[in-house]
Amino acid sequence: MNKEIIYKVPIRYYETDGMAIVHHSNYIRWFEDARCAMMEEVGWPYWKVEEMGIMIPVLSASCQYLKRVKYGEQIEIAVRVKAYTGVKLMLSYEVREQQTKEIRAEGETSHTFIGMDYKLLSLKRKCPQFHEVLKALAAKED
Amino acid sequence: MNKEIIYKVPIRYYETDGMAIVHHSNYIRWFEDARCAMMEEVGWPYWKVEEMGIMIPVLSASCQYLKRVKYGEQIEIAVRVKAYTGVKLMLSYEVREQQTKEIRAEGETSHTFIGMDYKLLSLKRKCPQFHEVLKALAAKED
Amino acid sequence: MNKEIIYKVPIRYYETDGMAIVHHSNYIRWFEDARCAMMEEVGWPYWKVEEMGIMIPVLSASCQYLKRVKYGEQIEIAVRVKAYTGVKLMLSYEVREQQTKEIRAEGETSHTFIGMDYKLLSLKRKCPQFHEVLKALAAKED
Amino acid sequence: MNKEIIYKVPIRYYETDGMAIVHHSNYIRWFEDARCAMMEEVGWPYWKVEEMGIMIPVLSASCQYLKRVKYGEQIEIAVRVKAYTGVKLMLSYEVREQQTKEIRAEGETSHTFIGMDYKLLSLKRKCPQFHEVLKALAAKED
Repeated sequence: MNKEIIYKVPIRYYETDGMAIVHHSNYIRWFEDARCAMMEEVGWPYWKVEEMGIMIPVLSASCQYLKRVKYGEQIEIAVRVKAYTGVKLMLSYEVREQQTKEIRAEGETSHTFIGMDYKLLSLKRKCPQFHEVLKALAAKED
Repeated sequence: MNKEIIYKVPIRYYETDGMAIVHHSNYIRWFEDARCAMMEEVGWPYWKVEEMGIMIPVLSASCQYLKRVKYGEQIEIAVRVKAYTGVKLMLSYEVREQQTKEIRAEGETSHTFIGMDYKLLSLKRKCPQFHEVLKALAAKED
Repeated sequence: MNKEIIYKVPIRYYETDGMAIVHHSNYIRWFEDARCAMMEEVGWPYWKVEEMGIMIPVLSASCQYLKRVKYGEQIEIAVRVKAYTGVKLMLSYEVREQQTKEIRAEGETSHTFIGMDYKLLSLKRKCPQFHEVLKALAAKED
Repeated sequence: MNKEIIYKVPIRYYETDGMAIVHHSNYIRWFEDARCAMMEEVGWPYWKVEEMGIMIPVLSASCQYLKRVKYGEQIEIAVRVKAYTGVKLMLSYEVREQQTKEIRAEGETSHTFIGMDYKLLSLKRKCPQFHEVLKALAAKED
């Protein structure tokens, strides 16, 4: 399984602010788009997971902005599972230009898994297949 | 009862796009903020209505943009109940500068009332008190 | 030249509100995404037009919401040039499910062309090639 | 000078997502709203600073989400200048319920100061008055 999923960002005009630069808050939203794309690519789209009664709230999010992104640029985000313990998931994101791979920003988010009652749940017990997928994604390459 | 409710818009920096002008899509969001403020002012905040099992979806929305709004300007929206039939609600909005009352945009939204089953409901039967408030707001002044 | 351009909407999770339904204000934003896709498809991406000193502000926008869109659905927007006079442009949008073509919403936007001084300009004089493209898109099919 | 500025958050309905909880990305936007409110309170509103040719880009942003915020809740953000070196500014944010002061989230952002040419500038030289204000805000209380 590919350890890195690439999400191509369809930059939207209203995501820019003064001087046609993407507003920093949108990177946090792109991270979500990127992890949704990752989930879809590994066969577990978010709506399917939600249908099983599992929600994946965000515990923390952070982003380092290295170089601004302009409207019209071709940007992609490489998402990786940085760590996965069965109850906690940590993802990392690299925002970069598609051709040159020049890095524009780096970020991380951490997550838990909860049920519709908002209580923590063990993904391993609730959905072993998705658990195995995340475990495989988190495994270090040899 | 005052027929016009004034909502002061707290313009946010990320609502602007190129050249520090507010993006047109945000007016549609301000309209929602303005009608939420109206509902709160007449004693029926949206969360309270939702708690009673009533949702107020948007059937249509429109806006005429007359003069752009810049970040740093003091803007207000005057909301009025243009029509109310018991099953359908129509609101009008005037976006204007707070001091000069110069009009920047005008818009309308129309709404129905539905239950948690997404089926149309009669507000008059489901919540007569809120029904009376809307009827009073819709009444023409003499 | 194809009269209708199809834009596939990458629905984002944060575009939904209560009960996983797309917030109505986002349709107005999708219209912009759709017309940007149209401009790109006909060889005049928005950033290129802006580089020539031309901005295309929104004069009016409207949307009729027929049936709600849920997160996870496959949605597309068909954009058409409804009218083009050389100084004013009117576009129409049909929001529909990709497979069934079931219509979820319909909308329109109208636009002018202005320079970096915010003054109206004649697109025909400022950029005859783009003018011709819009004229062709606006022409009725025989 | 008060070291802590309190910004009351006007929660907007479209800021919520599934189950009427505020989407995590909006906290990053609220941080901006809160620091704009801080700047206004100390006499240096953002538009005024921008007019002087100074922009304050975000170098990094982070947020720890402790307890979800629902639509209808009364939320405030306490902003503090955590550090200020003359070329770099670090702010901290505490998101909390207005009455109980229960903390819902904590975050930080870091910033530099740049000119309209996007080059780093010394705030001390470019705008000594604003520099002094930030220095005072950053000073530890005795």
